[in-house]
Amino acid sequence: MYSTTRPSDRLAALGVCYYPEHWPQEQWRELAEQMGKLGIDLVRIGEFAWSRIEPSPGSFQWDWLDRAIETLHSADLSVIMCTPTACPPRWLTQQIPEILPTSIDGQQRTFGSRRHYRFSCERYRAEASRISFKVIDRYRGHPAVVGWQLDNEYGCHSTTRSYSPEDLVQFQNWLAAKYGSCDALNQQWGTVFWSQEYTAFQDVELPNQTVTEANPAHWLDFYRFASDQEREFTRQQPVILRTGEESDSGDRNHKSIEAEPTQERLRPWITHNFMGNFTEFDHFAVGEDLDLATWDSYPLGFLDQSWFPNDEKLRYRRIGHPDWAAFHHDLYRAVGGVRFGVMEQQPGPVNWAESNALPLAGAPSFWAMEAVAHGAELVSFFRFQQYPRAQEQMHAALRLPNGQPAPAWDQAKRFRQALDQLPEEQVKQAPVALLFDYPSCWTSEIQAHAPSCWHLEWAFHFYSAVLQLGLDIDIVSATSALVGY
Amino acid sequence: MYSTTRPSDRLAALGVCYYPEHWPQEQWRELAEQMGKLGIDLVRIGEFAWSRIEPSPGSFQWDWLDRAIETLHSADLSVIMCTPTACPPRWLTQQIPEILPTSIDGQQRTFGSRRHYRFSCERYRAEASRISFKVIDRYRGHPAVVGWQLDNEYGCHSTTRSYSPEDLVQFQNWLAAKYGSCDALNQQWGTVFWSQEYTAFQDVELPNQTVTEANPAHWLDFYRFASDQEREFTRQQPVILRTGEESDSGDRNHKSIEAEPTQERLRPWITHNFMGNFTEFDHFAVGEDLDLATWDSYPLGFLDQSWFPNDEKLRYRRIGHPDWAAFHHDLYRAVGGVRFGVMEQQPGPVNWAESNALPLAGAPSFWAMEAVAHGAELVSFFRFQQYPRAQEQMHAALRLPNGQPAPAWDQAKRFRQALDQLPEEQVKQAPVALLFDYPSCWTSEIQAHAPSCWHLEWAFHFYSAVLQLGLDIDIVSATSALVGY
Amino acid sequence: MYSTTRPSDRLAALGVCYYPEHWPQEQWRELAEQMGKLGIDLVRIGEFAWSRIEPSPGSFQWDWLDRAIETLHSADLSVIMCTPTACPPRWLTQQIPEILPTSIDGQQRTFGSRRHYRFSCERYRAEASRISFKVIDRYRGHPAVVGWQLDNEYGCHSTTRSYSPEDLVQFQNWLAAKYGSCDALNQQWGTVFWSQEYTAFQDVELPNQTVTEANPAHWLDFYRFASDQEREFTRQQPVILRTGEESDSGDRNHKSIEAEPTQERLRPWITHNFMGNFTEFDHFAVGEDLDLATWDSYPLGFLDQSWFPNDEKLRYRRIGHPDWAAFHHDLYRAVGGVRFGVMEQQPGPVNWAESNALPLAGAPSFWAMEAVAHGAELVSFFRFQQYPRAQEQMHAALRLPNGQPAPAWDQAKRFRQALDQLPEEQVKQAPVALLFDYPSCWTSEIQAHAPSCWHLEWAFHFYSAVLQLGLDIDIVSATSALVGY
Repeated sequence: MYSTTRPSDRLAALGVCYYPEHWPQEQWRELAEQMGKLGIDLVRIGEFAWSRIEPSPGSFQWDWLDRAIETLHSADLSVIMCTPTACPPRWLTQQIPEILPTSIDGQQRTFGSRRHYRFSCERYRAEASRISFKVIDRYRGHPAVVGWQLDNEYGCHSTTRSYSPEDLVQFQNWLAAKYGSCDALNQQWGTVFWSQEYTAFQDVELPNQTVTEANPAHWLDFYRFASDQEREFTRQQPVILRTGEESDSGDRNHKSIEAEPTQERLRPWITHNFMGNFTEFDHFAVGEDLDLATWDSYPLGFLDQSWFPNDEKLRYRRIGHPDWAAFHHDLYRAVGGVRFGVMEQQPGPVNWAESNALPLAGAPSFWAMEAVAHGAELVSFFRFQQYPRAQEQMHAALRLPNGQPAPAWDQAKRFRQALDQLPEEQVKQAPVALLFDYPSCWTSEIQAHAPSCWHLEWAFHFYSAVLQLGLDIDIVSATSALVGY
Repeated sequence: MYSTTRPSDRLAALGVCYYPEHWPQEQWRELAEQMGKLGIDLVRIGEFAWSRIEPSPGSFQWDWLDRAIETLHSADLSVIMCTPTACPPRWLTQQIPEILPTSIDGQQRTFGSRRHYRFSCERYRAEASRISFKVIDRYRGHPAVVGWQLDNEYGCHSTTRSYSPEDLVQFQNWLAAKYGSCDALNQQWGTVFWSQEYTAFQDVELPNQTVTEANPAHWLDFYRFASDQEREFTRQQPVILRTGEESDSGDRNHKSIEAEPTQERLRPWITHNFMGNFTEFDHFAVGEDLDLATWDSYPLGFLDQSWFPNDEKLRYRRIGHPDWAAFHHDLYRAVGGVRFGVMEQQPGPVNWAESNALPLAGAPSFWAMEAVAHGAELVSFFRFQQYPRAQEQMHAALRLPNGQPAPAWDQAKRFRQALDQLPEEQVKQAPVALLFDYPSCWTSEIQAHAPSCWHLEWAFHFYSAVLQLGLDIDIVSATSALVGY
Repeated sequence: MYSTTRPSDRLAALGVCYYPEHWPQEQWRELAEQMGKLGIDLVRIGEFAWSRIEPSPGSFQWDWLDRAIETLHSADLSVIMCTPTACPPRWLTQQIPEILPTSIDGQQRTFGSRRHYRFSCERYRAEASRISFKVIDRYRGHPAVVGWQLDNEYGCHSTTRSYSPEDLVQFQNWLAAKYGSCDALNQQWGTVFWSQEYTAFQDVELPNQTVTEANPAHWLDFYRFASDQEREFTRQQPVILRTGEESDSGDRNHKSIEAEPTQERLRPWITHNFMGNFTEFDHFAVGEDLDLATWDSYPLGFLDQSWFPNDEKLRYRRIGHPDWAAFHHDLYRAVGGVRFGVMEQQPGPVNWAESNALPLAGAPSFWAMEAVAHGAELVSFFRFQQYPRAQEQMHAALRLPNGQPAPAWDQAKRFRQALDQLPEEQVKQAPVALLFDYPSCWTSEIQAHAPSCWHLEWAFHFYSAVLQLGLDIDIVSATSALVGY
């Protein structure tokens, strides 16, 4: 049963992702006005703006961001303010090269895209805490800021697990903390098998370069360790948000943050924007530190990347698999402890799948309404205006690069109208619970007994079968009470 | 024609693989009794036990192994004692990191699974010789020990060929010994092609990192070199077994081993357990130093990993391709100079193929009888009891982890009964000989003219066609006399 | 419209690729006589002969090459003389290891095949210039030498783009030269996206090791840079050929080359032999420095490696796709500024595709005539006699390794006869122009929106559709005038 439902807090909001730094300041007012005309409530900004906020170490440029927020505020738009830690700037990876993650093949990745950091990197945690504090310190009391997003899309691009020498040391420490003695580790892992016994935690290596498969318990502990790093990384930031104290402060002299502003409907809540179709870390664990969970709903991109057979991919190529977004909505409703939303809603073709189909004409508004039907308090389209440069230049938006409306423009409008006619309703417990457990995913991944033995796929098959019986479903974690199902 | 058939020596034995180190000592008696009840003759032990025998450098723990052997002996079971060199312990890879092999991508592999050693590593050869001598020294005279297995599954997990800087030096030396002069190498390889001429053996590099394909003679010599290392590695150990002298002895003062014990039927023979479906080294060359050859028969795992088209894989998925085990039996009968056995017989689903099917109800006993029909003197099921930890925790056994009989239990029993009713019969020469040559495999692999041009596959097609004509086949090596075929 | 058509210069020649260094000198006369009997006009030699010309640094062996050319000349054969820079000898890669390219996975490649050099390597450019000058210096005035081939098959085996630390420095310099200021680069690339802003050109890394896709403008500039290196490399050599001065000369005292010899029909022209099916560098840019373009026409090998669906591959497996060679002929006619030829014509099965089919009986002469029908002035069969060693030992030729005629022998004869009956005809402009642009290939490769969005494939589909309407096509570059189409 859900811990709390807070109907007075519930949003019923249309959002949009927006990057003022992509556009000349003289266009900002017009952009904000157009958002207002579309009936947008919430604008997410700032999640990739570190290099503009702090162009060189310790030198901050707040003017543009102040003005961007003011412009939105003047247009009666509220802001979801992000901490920019998903993209450390170039000067930081030069100062601290150990920030950069190492992939499973042993290659250290370079600067030049995003998510180029290791969760276990203590120096990066300190830097992430520092920049987050600065952003929070500046905008916490701002009347436009109604929510905070920590980082963005944890783990995307296989960055949950990093295989550097520094990760190894942290992993050994994690093992020491978990097992206490090497004998206990030997016992639990069964290292007597294949003469694998260790006499010190420092003897354990990372599992990615063994001759043949490493001990599955070795892998599972490494996956647990990596997931834990993600949670620890998260925990530092909400602590800041709630106390106004920098977790690793010390000699730095940040002024204390004033008392929390009170707002009628949208008090500052904390979220993280999770990537769908992704099981490399325990979302429930991260969710415990959030007020609500948000996720990225890209039905066509996910279908293309999925295990569905080709005929199903072809059949659903312009609308997405009918139960796939539903599964994720119900999953993130659980991750958020009932409160959830869609932070990025696919508006048109994406650029990152192998085949990037054009959605059917009514698909985006349909997807948005489906989210609301599953209890979403927020559906935020990605993104207001297509930027004609860099990695996502081929990714659709509500407006074309030249400012003309894209096909999704009317879709957002239609969703706004539907939203305005919604009765306020409390989320009710479903009759059926489906237990979903991230460590079980890892186990079946590590010891797949057949090519189709993926936990997520099987969970989805059960989910889909129940849904087709006409039953609502709650997805629950392994620690949830099952009373009432 | 076979060199010798020794009917008085021939076994007709049911064996089992057993890991006393996996189980508490208080269970050993019950385990041995159950083996006895099943009618087991031979128990293979010790091939992965180095870390238990020598937990730290030079400090030996024999008590447990003495007791394990005694317990088996008391239950009237004979022992195949293994040298534990397939799994050097962690402290040894820390002392001598150059033991670890380097794979074709140039990455040195790490400790954490098995077979983590280079055959060409001289310091590892000395260590392997040292530990083997210790084991032999202790158990050579033991009345329970009727056979010796050297190492286990040479070359498994692509470990025949290692690409480290140390391998390169050994390869250059090998080339110098083979060709005498660089001119001769240039002439034989045809290095005038593409301006590839060498002026010193030290100029030759490993063939795995060239811009496009390396000279096929370069590859072939590297494959020959790697195969030779495996043979040299083997030769050191039988020498010990036969003479009681450590091959690299010197200042170490091992006591001399007493005279070889005589036994009526099972005098101590020497074997290696070969992996099926494997052509990376010349099995005939290694076989020359053995008294009999044994191999691993996993019909379902091999089928899943094979080149057979999907419809055949599906048809035979629970019994294996009907001629595939037969081909291997006939091959290893030749490798062993007529004497051979199955050291590991699949008992149920394995864990290491992509799809791990459940064998048909009667399959394991059928496979075992098929081996005997091809002249096997021994069929040993892998393994007595499933260990619920580590890499093969999902690999079936005769007993479940909790000690209850697995489906294969009755299969072993049925095979025992069949074995007891077998007339003693001499292996006769077949009417047809199929020449199988490992270097020819390498040649066709290096210069495949079409995707299906694999020597092993083609040899198998010829084999299968002859078999379907109702003719028995002897597989022979390139140096065999062909009289009588 | 074509810049020049020079009917008096036009060849109508049968050529052959020949490696005198593969055969004992006592056979050379017979080989030349047989070439003469076959009616061969031109013999290409020397493109892989560096290690024979300069066996150790600075020590030249000209005798054999002088004699090889004399032998051909005596048999009334003309020679296309190659610079041997596609294969630096072993001693040179030992002197200057930075010559060796680094592939996209970050591994530096080794000596042992061919094309083992980086185009951006300044020290290699100096070496290439040095050896080319030596060859040119020796044979420029020779009456047999009617054409020069610079290097061979640029970029083959993915060598256009190298990813070494030295390449990075050159790339940074290239960016600095292109953009002038880092702000301009930031603006053009849109680095504000994902906080990717640079403050110095030295901050930019290579795009091959980022966490997820690098900025497409980053990739495109890297591709442009790599293509430019190839052109720069080319430019040094024609400069030598035309002026007789070594481009990087200085303190070296090469004698000045005499005045250019005049010849009635075949004055010394300069070509490069391009690999078909290859778009990694801008062939038009390299072509600007050539007198005519030649390419490798391997219809069966290219079909096997192509994107054509399996049923088409099967249908055309022994003749090649009917429009594929045509497309290349028309492309290289444009690259050569109307003058082009086939430097390597497939004579029988190749060895380098996955499946290496036997051509239909009349295919080689048909392919040769097709080339002439598209305006080729030269069709040169690869190679006169099959060398039974090294990488291409399984690649067919006009003669078998033992000197007997291979099936292609009669094909070459038939082509000779057809050639002799050809009327002299000027190449006319076609009614339809198809614009083909290499940077556009790179763009669609970097930002493919669907798996089949390859520029070359789409260009080919347009080409093929027009051809099937019965229309001739000129392929033109992005800078061509379109008057008259």
